[in-house]
Amino acid sequence: MDIKTTYPSNNYTIHVGESILHHQIEAYSKKYDSIFYIIDSRVYDLHKEVLSFIKSPVLTRSGEASKTPEEYIRVVESLLEKGIKRNSLIFVIGGGATGDAGGFSASTVLRGVDYIQVPTTLLAHDSAVGGKTAINSAHGKNLIGTFHRPKAVIYDLDFLNTLPESELLSGFGEVFKHMLLHSRDKAKTLIRDTENGILIPDLKKYLIKGIEIKRDIVTEDEHESGKRKFLNLGHTLAHALEYKYKFPHGQAVILGLYAMMTISNEFYQKSIFDLPFYYEYFDQLGYPLHYLKEMDIDEMIRLMKQDKKNQKNDYIGFILMNDDTPEFKEIEEIKIRQYLNALKESI
Amino acid sequence: MDIKTTYPSNNYTIHVGESILHHQIEAYSKKYDSIFYIIDSRVYDLHKEVLSFIKSPVLTRSGEASKTPEEYIRVVESLLEKGIKRNSLIFVIGGGATGDAGGFSASTVLRGVDYIQVPTTLLAHDSAVGGKTAINSAHGKNLIGTFHRPKAVIYDLDFLNTLPESELLSGFGEVFKHMLLHSRDKAKTLIRDTENGILIPDLKKYLIKGIEIKRDIVTEDEHESGKRKFLNLGHTLAHALEYKYKFPHGQAVILGLYAMMTISNEFYQKSIFDLPFYYEYFDQLGYPLHYLKEMDIDEMIRLMKQDKKNQKNDYIGFILMNDDTPEFKEIEEIKIRQYLNALKESI
Repeated sequence: MDIKTTYPSNNYTIHVGESILHHQIEAYSKKYDSIFYIIDSRVYDLHKEVLSFIKSPVLTRSGEASKTPEEYIRVVESLLEKGIKRNSLIFVIGGGATGDAGGFSASTVLRGVDYIQVPTTLLAHDSAVGGKTAINSAHGKNLIGTFHRPKAVIYDLDFLNTLPESELLSGFGEVFKHMLLHSRDKAKTLIRDTENGILIPDLKKYLIKGIEIKRDIVTEDEHESGKRKFLNLGHTLAHALEYKYKFPHGQAVILGLYAMMTISNEFYQKSIFDLPFYYEYFDQLGYPLHYLKEMDIDEMIRLMKQDKKNQKNDYIGFILMNDDTPEFKEIEEIKIRQYLNALKESI
Repeated sequence: MDIKTTYPSNNYTIHVGESILHHQIEAYSKKYDSIFYIIDSRVYDLHKEVLSFIKSPVLTRSGEASKTPEEYIRVVESLLEKGIKRNSLIFVIGGGATGDAGGFSASTVLRGVDYIQVPTTLLAHDSAVGGKTAINSAHGKNLIGTFHRPKAVIYDLDFLNTLPESELLSGFGEVFKHMLLHSRDKAKTLIRDTENGILIPDLKKYLIKGIEIKRDIVTEDEHESGKRKFLNLGHTLAHALEYKYKFPHGQAVILGLYAMMTISNEFYQKSIFDLPFYYEYFDQLGYPLHYLKEMDIDEMIRLMKQDKKNQKNDYIGFILMNDDTPEFKEIEEIKIRQYLNALKESI
């Protein structure tokens, strides 16, 4: 299945399917003088046979560890050491973190070299679309980066078969978010299809739908001045939680989505979300909802204020759902404190 | 004097004049919620009174020392520490190096924040125009960076009065290059006006002309796929020389221009440049031409091959002057070796 972006120009294709990796890499490589690979070291170990055709990859530390400034510099220097040129092509193979950091390396080495995202996790179906690149700062996640579109995304679903449970739960967080952005009904269909656990074959159609939902939003608002903010649904608290407790991004997103549900109900003063229904579903799938009970609210607020979307002091920007319509609201810090206290006590 | 860029969109103004700093900073600051300053620490010391209105600047190591990856990360973390937001504005105050590195910080913090270049050297009349940002790699100069236009350039010529002789010589290298790109006649007029030394008041009209020449080239070819390469006149060898011998950039450019003259004469097999005339002029102004005698040619070639403009192995891209027309030529390594040997022996 090929999904094409719909920007006014410089479009690219998101290829989704089983066993498509070799063919697509070969096809894209033809147009370039030299090819480079940035690969998550763990992915490289897990898929040694499939990736054995790659002779001299730049291996990065696995997962979030690839997003430190030091690791970024090391990767860029390795690419230069290996003789990268402006008309080279870089394939970035790994999960969301590898994609973010590899994309940032590609966008800044020699002031920008073409690159292709090869996501290997469920989560990366999200981050590989939209052309945002990022590394982490000592002051928060994703605070350093660029907007730099890939030349293509090759999403070979074979990679998903080796995902550990915690990664599956993490990636599912973004899938769930995309459905919720569409409508509560769509989310409920997904819930029905995963009542007995998350199985990759059942998810394929939701992955494609999720990519399309995201594609449509980022096409309209590439540089996040309006609608793109909606993709941040659940993320404001999620970033603070994962920064503090160091658990997988998409799992934190589920916790953030649950917090968003309770805040939306309060903010709009109507019962948009059936909280016990969602709580039980998330709990039964194994999400660590207990962090919502344990969190230090002062600390969460301090971390949330670092968020790039915040424009005003003493206010925190949140995406809420007004029934099935996402809305960006700047909420007073004091109100947020109340909402989070209530949430904490309800658990 | 205001010079406006002529891109299809997102144009900006280059303000050139005496004592324009305060007024312009005030005017641009009005449109933003918060203002940040990245300032070369030496410039800040030298101009403490003029800059005393700035309360909490991010001071950077002076000159090229600001362009290490470590210093880049430190500056970005300081901006975040001080609470920079997406709708903040950054003024980058300093020479060419500060502008390059400060521009890179601005273009990557929070995925890009608006910035204004405030060049304080002669050299920076060049680097502040065109929207290239850069830091240095262990493998060569300017190998990491972005294309990111400033919102304006404020070129207050008062800063030039405190320039030490070596900086004056350095900046003059790019002024001379711009005139040569226009024509040998233009270069000769500049030579006539500087026979008795380089004086700022005499240079003003050449600075403005230089900015216009550069502006016209970068407008036509922002991302350096064609004509913009011409601005690299003299730079291929210059980058290698300054990397090796650590002397000011623009001084190396003069040496590189002299090498370009000898290569152009050889390559086109006609006497385009009167070599003894230029040699004597550069020598009398005090340029360290002796490095052309001392340089290790193998090492220079190795360093030149790192240049971003090189697309093919065993060839090095040079900008040559065919009479008054700049041309990009990919020259075999073996030929370059011959040319440089001949140059070395002629000195």
